[in-house]
Amino acid sequence: MLTNTHLYQEIHEQPAVLRRFLTEERATVAALATAVRARAVSHVVLAARGTSDNAGRYAQYVLGAFNGLTVALATPSLYSIYQRPPRFGNALVLGISQSGQSPDIVAVLAEARKQGALTAVLTNTPDSPLGQQGDFVINLHAGAEKAVAATKTYTSSLAAIALLSALLAEDAEMETALQQLPAALDLTLTMSAPLATAVSRYRYMQRSVIIGRGYNYATAFEMALKMKELTYTIVEPYSSADFLHGPLALIEPGFPVIVIAPTGLMLPEMQGFMRTLRAREAEIIGISDDMATLELARIPLALPQAVPEWLSPLTAIVPGQLFAMHLAYTRDFDVDAPRAIRKVTETR
Amino acid sequence: MLTNTHLYQEIHEQPAVLRRFLTEERATVAALATAVRARAVSHVVLAARGTSDNAGRYAQYVLGAFNGLTVALATPSLYSIYQRPPRFGNALVLGISQSGQSPDIVAVLAEARKQGALTAVLTNTPDSPLGQQGDFVINLHAGAEKAVAATKTYTSSLAAIALLSALLAEDAEMETALQQLPAALDLTLTMSAPLATAVSRYRYMQRSVIIGRGYNYATAFEMALKMKELTYTIVEPYSSADFLHGPLALIEPGFPVIVIAPTGLMLPEMQGFMRTLRAREAEIIGISDDMATLELARIPLALPQAVPEWLSPLTAIVPGQLFAMHLAYTRDFDVDAPRAIRKVTETR
Repeated sequence: MLTNTHLYQEIHEQPAVLRRFLTEERATVAALATAVRARAVSHVVLAARGTSDNAGRYAQYVLGAFNGLTVALATPSLYSIYQRPPRFGNALVLGISQSGQSPDIVAVLAEARKQGALTAVLTNTPDSPLGQQGDFVINLHAGAEKAVAATKTYTSSLAAIALLSALLAEDAEMETALQQLPAALDLTLTMSAPLATAVSRYRYMQRSVIIGRGYNYATAFEMALKMKELTYTIVEPYSSADFLHGPLALIEPGFPVIVIAPTGLMLPEMQGFMRTLRAREAEIIGISDDMATLELARIPLALPQAVPEWLSPLTAIVPGQLFAMHLAYTRDFDVDAPRAIRKVTETR
Repeated sequence: MLTNTHLYQEIHEQPAVLRRFLTEERATVAALATAVRARAVSHVVLAARGTSDNAGRYAQYVLGAFNGLTVALATPSLYSIYQRPPRFGNALVLGISQSGQSPDIVAVLAEARKQGALTAVLTNTPDSPLGQQGDFVINLHAGAEKAVAATKTYTSSLAAIALLSALLAEDAEMETALQQLPAALDLTLTMSAPLATAVSRYRYMQRSVIIGRGYNYATAFEMALKMKELTYTIVEPYSSADFLHGPLALIEPGFPVIVIAPTGLMLPEMQGFMRTLRAREAEIIGISDDMATLELARIPLALPQAVPEWLSPLTAIVPGQLFAMHLAYTRDFDVDAPRAIRKVTETR
């Protein structure tokens, strides 16, 4: 039964994980924020793979928008395979990994330490090789994650980044908004029942693209990864702007496109993009809390609650996780143990 | 007739464009290198879309490996839509655009100027809105590019980045190696005839992934973009390391995977990856100059000449361009004017 799977349970644990994280880990994140300010960090370099890398994409927007920090995604092979590491200078080097095991990510942090850069690690396994490389080690407090497809460690990583941003900005309003997210997540999980029905339409879908931009660029990537891992469908994520620079040629009548479009400054851009898709007769699956936006979609997936745009990736990913899980179940796939992959992947 | 199309001709102009670029533009690139050294630039921020963004991915590896520079890909919406620009500090801000028109890319460079950062522009249209924002404007010298799918401006952008890296490193050997690339490109173009035959096997292919890592991460992205633009096939690019962290679940017997694997330090990694794919009975299309590697592929596409690994993206993309062009032609698609897209895309 689906409700007995690890994946189902871990998706539903997310509000509790978030509450625990925000309580237990505030002091550590605050200490990191103090260190970042004290060293007048010039930029951030981020090392991560898979789901954690998608959390990094969120950091690019949040730390950029609220803290003025440019965030570079590291190129781990320069450290591990080419052994030609760039200079970190006065960067904060942040490693994100659920397991803390992957040697290429550990190599980036080890080099950062060697160069004397400030290092921090977000991990669900503080006592891991990666954890040992962090001046600051932030525990994701997700509890054991047993399903191969990561869900609760993703939202917990987003919360860690959001909290770091709020504390760096010394903005109490931001922190208050974040404290309200667990309740919003509870409400968002009510989408599970309607999604269980909605996905049957996509039983034989073989390809799709997912569009998100700005804060929800990360959401598009993470939903696409869940779709690939769980449903074995090739689903490519794109920013709407990048998609218009070429890949739009893909679209033919009926081509399924999932659009992440919660309320916020990006919404008019997403609505315009949906109109472009409609003109080309794409099938639009819309994820939004905005009625007018949902009306542009063939299949509207209504987010039950609006949250501040910068926090919307924490709720907007939930229908993505649920969509992938229910579709995999509809296809009789093992939602806890997808073929070919394992929980801990070690790459060099 | 295919040989009369702009796309065919522009692909074949690439050696001449490279020769012209390396002669005409050396002085400007040298002046930029001098400015970068004089200001002791701490990192690089890159703004680009589509094909130009893929050239930026090459810059991440080359400027990292040879010049110790961390390269961040900018998040244009922070400048254009959210109007919350990060601080550039002592970064070099580099805009890449064939047309120099896209407002979001112009917005990043304009903000960089306002903040007093060093700016440079790589463009085929120096007299463009983007050109006006560059302290240094490097002309790609590609001549008019009329096919919607960019080819010669891509290799010219790669050459510009390679030349900047060589001049920054003050490494005459690097520059000599680069001077030999136009001849290597001439030879690589002989792959056109065998590719015209090889692609018929993929007439009805509906999806694929392309794998490259390190210097050729860019090649995977750029070939995937050509495939999407020209053949309307969903083709997702991945680093082999990222692919193992989840998307490997996609692979079932016969799933077509294109692997970019020229000689170099990354080759053992690519060979190991190909063995993983073989164990899962994927169909491997291998692009390599190495015989043992080609033997791991179901369909080997032999690069006629080995070049230094850091320059291999300039030749390895050519079979990618030719593959996409011939496959589009095989499918009776218009190779010069793909549906839905235009030469100049303006996004905000």
